[in-house]
Amino acid sequence: MLGPNQFGKAEIRLVHVDRTGPAHHLTDLNVSTALRGDFAAAHLTGDNSHVLTTDAQKNTVYAFAREHGIGQIEDFAIRLGRHFVDSFPWIDGARIEIEQYHWNRIPVGGVPHDHAFSRAGGERRTTVVTVDGDAAFVVSGLAGLVVLKSTGSEFWGFPRDPYTTLAETTDRILATEVTARWRYIGAGHDFGPLFDGVRETLMGTFADVHSLALQQTLYRMGEAALTAFPQVAEVRMSMPNKHHFLVDLEPFGLDNPDIVYQAPDRPYGRIEAAVLRDDAPDPGPSWQAVPGFC
Amino acid sequence: MLGPNQFGKAEIRLVHVDRTGPAHHLTDLNVSTALRGDFAAAHLTGDNSHVLTTDAQKNTVYAFAREHGIGQIEDFAIRLGRHFVDSFPWIDGARIEIEQYHWNRIPVGGVPHDHAFSRAGGERRTTVVTVDGDAAFVVSGLAGLVVLKSTGSEFWGFPRDPYTTLAETTDRILATEVTARWRYIGAGHDFGPLFDGVRETLMGTFADVHSLALQQTLYRMGEAALTAFPQVAEVRMSMPNKHHFLVDLEPFGLDNPDIVYQAPDRPYGRIEAAVLRDDAPDPGPSWQAVPGFC
Amino acid sequence: MLGPNQFGKAEIRLVHVDRTGPAHHLTDLNVSTALRGDFAAAHLTGDNSHVLTTDAQKNTVYAFAREHGIGQIEDFAIRLGRHFVDSFPWIDGARIEIEQYHWNRIPVGGVPHDHAFSRAGGERRTTVVTVDGDAAFVVSGLAGLVVLKSTGSEFWGFPRDPYTTLAETTDRILATEVTARWRYIGAGHDFGPLFDGVRETLMGTFADVHSLALQQTLYRMGEAALTAFPQVAEVRMSMPNKHHFLVDLEPFGLDNPDIVYQAPDRPYGRIEAAVLRDDAPDPGPSWQAVPGFC
Amino acid sequence: MLGPNQFGKAEIRLVHVDRTGPAHHLTDLNVSTALRGDFAAAHLTGDNSHVLTTDAQKNTVYAFAREHGIGQIEDFAIRLGRHFVDSFPWIDGARIEIEQYHWNRIPVGGVPHDHAFSRAGGERRTTVVTVDGDAAFVVSGLAGLVVLKSTGSEFWGFPRDPYTTLAETTDRILATEVTARWRYIGAGHDFGPLFDGVRETLMGTFADVHSLALQQTLYRMGEAALTAFPQVAEVRMSMPNKHHFLVDLEPFGLDNPDIVYQAPDRPYGRIEAAVLRDDAPDPGPSWQAVPGFC
Repeated sequence: MLGPNQFGKAEIRLVHVDRTGPAHHLTDLNVSTALRGDFAAAHLTGDNSHVLTTDAQKNTVYAFAREHGIGQIEDFAIRLGRHFVDSFPWIDGARIEIEQYHWNRIPVGGVPHDHAFSRAGGERRTTVVTVDGDAAFVVSGLAGLVVLKSTGSEFWGFPRDPYTTLAETTDRILATEVTARWRYIGAGHDFGPLFDGVRETLMGTFADVHSLALQQTLYRMGEAALTAFPQVAEVRMSMPNKHHFLVDLEPFGLDNPDIVYQAPDRPYGRIEAAVLRDDAPDPGPSWQAVPGFC
Repeated sequence: MLGPNQFGKAEIRLVHVDRTGPAHHLTDLNVSTALRGDFAAAHLTGDNSHVLTTDAQKNTVYAFAREHGIGQIEDFAIRLGRHFVDSFPWIDGARIEIEQYHWNRIPVGGVPHDHAFSRAGGERRTTVVTVDGDAAFVVSGLAGLVVLKSTGSEFWGFPRDPYTTLAETTDRILATEVTARWRYIGAGHDFGPLFDGVRETLMGTFADVHSLALQQTLYRMGEAALTAFPQVAEVRMSMPNKHHFLVDLEPFGLDNPDIVYQAPDRPYGRIEAAVLRDDAPDPGPSWQAVPGFC
Repeated sequence: MLGPNQFGKAEIRLVHVDRTGPAHHLTDLNVSTALRGDFAAAHLTGDNSHVLTTDAQKNTVYAFAREHGIGQIEDFAIRLGRHFVDSFPWIDGARIEIEQYHWNRIPVGGVPHDHAFSRAGGERRTTVVTVDGDAAFVVSGLAGLVVLKSTGSEFWGFPRDPYTTLAETTDRILATEVTARWRYIGAGHDFGPLFDGVRETLMGTFADVHSLALQQTLYRMGEAALTAFPQVAEVRMSMPNKHHFLVDLEPFGLDNPDIVYQAPDRPYGRIEAAVLRDDAPDPGPSWQAVPGFC
Repeated sequence: MLGPNQFGKAEIRLVHVDRTGPAHHLTDLNVSTALRGDFAAAHLTGDNSHVLTTDAQKNTVYAFAREHGIGQIEDFAIRLGRHFVDSFPWIDGARIEIEQYHWNRIPVGGVPHDHAFSRAGGERRTTVVTVDGDAAFVVSGLAGLVVLKSTGSEFWGFPRDPYTTLAETTDRILATEVTARWRYIGAGHDFGPLFDGVRETLMGTFADVHSLALQQTLYRMGEAALTAFPQVAEVRMSMPNKHHFLVDLEPFGLDNPDIVYQAPDRPYGRIEAAVLRDDAPDPGPSWQAVPGFC
């Protein structure tokens, strides 16, 4: 029998230019849609009468960008999800996922240029909005934020089984690529300042906390966000431990007092956890993404 | 408060050479571990007394490969997961994820070489084993299998809303990159032949079914696997629609009767579904991967 | 002043289906064009009267695929390059670069399917054709061929300076990803069988030669191709040494007699060389690719 | 016979922490070495007596970072190249290639943190230093700089052949990912401020020039750098045209006055050129990278 399923258009690259003033504003997005509902006939018999084409989903994204503008990515996603669910009786859920790329104005003679931009790098602002019947669930986040502390990180006191060879340390490099997603209570927020605030809180806490474990750093980051922003119910973070190993220079007659490191790509530590408000409301389908591909 | 969490070592690249006979056997793996249990102290206070280091987890993977060999990846994963859960009272779950790369023997004068190999390409055999207390849940799969039908695929009968511009077609290219995961009933199987059988069934069904929708093709593939292999409870597939568009050659005075296509990278269709046996046993934590990162 | 320059369209993804018989034939290409000639005005004053648009170059690729078919990629590239150079008096050179992806027929019940294919993996067949006035220079090749020998490879006798710590070995894993390019004498060959022959010779020699150095293996591979194929003037190869390190299992009371390896991504050895026929004709602009980006 | 060849260690990931003051300084590099000289015996007979192991080359990089510090990447590369050429009579050339990743201090309460950093993104500072006997050739550059102008770019006046369908435009998005390499006259410069100056000049010119062709923009950028910095002999740039296409919204009853764009990945325009000082000294082996792999 047919289990959970969804379909949509993935990775619609959309660039929107706001030319209403002398200084243009650029919005650069990667949008993915997915619809849920009664699509059994398409699976069982190839009857497509319920299959709103993924091409039409893509067209809707572009047309909405023109008709209503974009604004905050959470609001754009809610608008899209609401449209799909409200327009077709057999569609009862929509999941809209958006990544936003940051651009900076190019400074010319110290003055930010009106219409020339440089892309800011690997970090993206993200949102995953699930419209489920009348409700909307908003999970915002960031991805690709690579951070590093060159000191202020210890790691000791761990158990030693027969396969443990790691030395304890009271000073190491701590580096990670933060993927964070936070679930909002309700869907009507001023999402722009909230994003800036949560991001600044996460980064500042990473910098300030003297680390005894990456788990502790992660928890403190989530806790700080929950404390500062009552609109947030839960923060989930994946913070892989990107190892930096001191190079052994003794064969060359050199010491290495925490100065020269090699940084391998793989393997890396996998550290993942959720931090919740004690009275966090039920997540509903917030975290339900894909039928089993996690 | 602390929510679901796990930690481990990701992407341990392990190559094992079986040199017991004149013809070597090569096993090339990418192993990721994750442990679940009582790790609250590490998060809340930085007390690492329960944190079996990810370095030790990595060492265990390499040592087990030497001590017990590898065999089928499912068995290797069960062995590892069982070890972690049984060795430490505060660890009650382990998730072991393995990708296997295929290698072929290089033919020399028509004879497969004893110890020279070429890598077979992008496809990987996968497994995700979750050991949960006394139970073990096995999800096997494949990833990176790119397939294409140059005919035998139609797409029509879909609804036309104001954003629908797509033309109906009774002959198109159907191309996708299959990610399939199938959940076994029980954990004691002859996993090698089963993998080969399910893979062959999925591919053969893709080739044979006259397609009216990618959803229908997906469903038939899952159904065929369930029919042929009573050991399988459920198949979950992600089959992105990799579009191939006919190039409009009319401006150059040329027709294009399904001959010349351009193949964009993005966007692509997202088609995902699960196909279950009616009496499929409860999946338990089979599909529970990560706290919310899907 | 303006130095060397070229412009074109890169990475035109073209899929061609030959439907003339009951069994379809698939040709899957990535084509890049570049034109050379008198384009000074575009650079100096923005006068585009000599700039054959990259869009037109792309259109030409698709139209030629329909009008003349594809055949061997070398012939397709020559046809395209010749067209550009012959059609515009200010264009005196064209460089056409093609990558070809391999597809296999999906076997159904042991019989290769007529119109269902699976992609063969990471290896590509390549060509770089330079049309220069009346002449054409053809460099064919392969890329992404990953090969490994689990024994039959030694490495010793190297100099020991103060920074040398590597141990000598008479048995190691030898693994590399071969990029090979061979330059033909003349441009009128039966390129399909020649490609198959050179590829088989390179792979067979890799397998057969007892290796004392990756450099020696590389040289022998090139030499074998030159010996077997008088049409080939020169072979250039890049064969990065993909290290496989024996894991030290002694801390766990285990030996490791060349059985368990870890395979890091970086760094890797860089081994590059050309092997030429003694009387190789002048390469002309065969290897001249880009103004300085190598 | 053996043609041009080189060997070395590629992609040595090196992180250096300067802990001499209260505020740490981070240097994050990707270093690749290659040696040239008399390595015929290794190729012809597998005699490694001239093969300074790539492992030793890697060790030298790490040891030099500790012993002499890093400083500007050009100086570090010269020091390494000089060492290899001066230490072994059979080595007469060395090519040292370095990529540097940028990191910013994390601001906490508006104050840049002493030892917590975030990675700045995709752009890298680069150098390719070739030591050739007694001489050293320095080519510095940048890569991964993605820039975009939302207006101030025209494209018209191009020839129309039978394959030209592109419409002329007086207002389009111009976007590219700049790879620039500039060759210095001599090897003794204050490379840090020079890098900053050339980078600022390139970006400022991109922003300021009203563009009639990407070729013209490229040329003006190179010209501006040559004008402002007499230390620079030549600038070579690769500036792929990353197309942004206006979405046709007419089917949905909407206009699109340069507001909503889709941004495909491939194909893209390839625009490459060198801009030289009229009296530029001979480049020597500056641009000679690899035997034929360009």
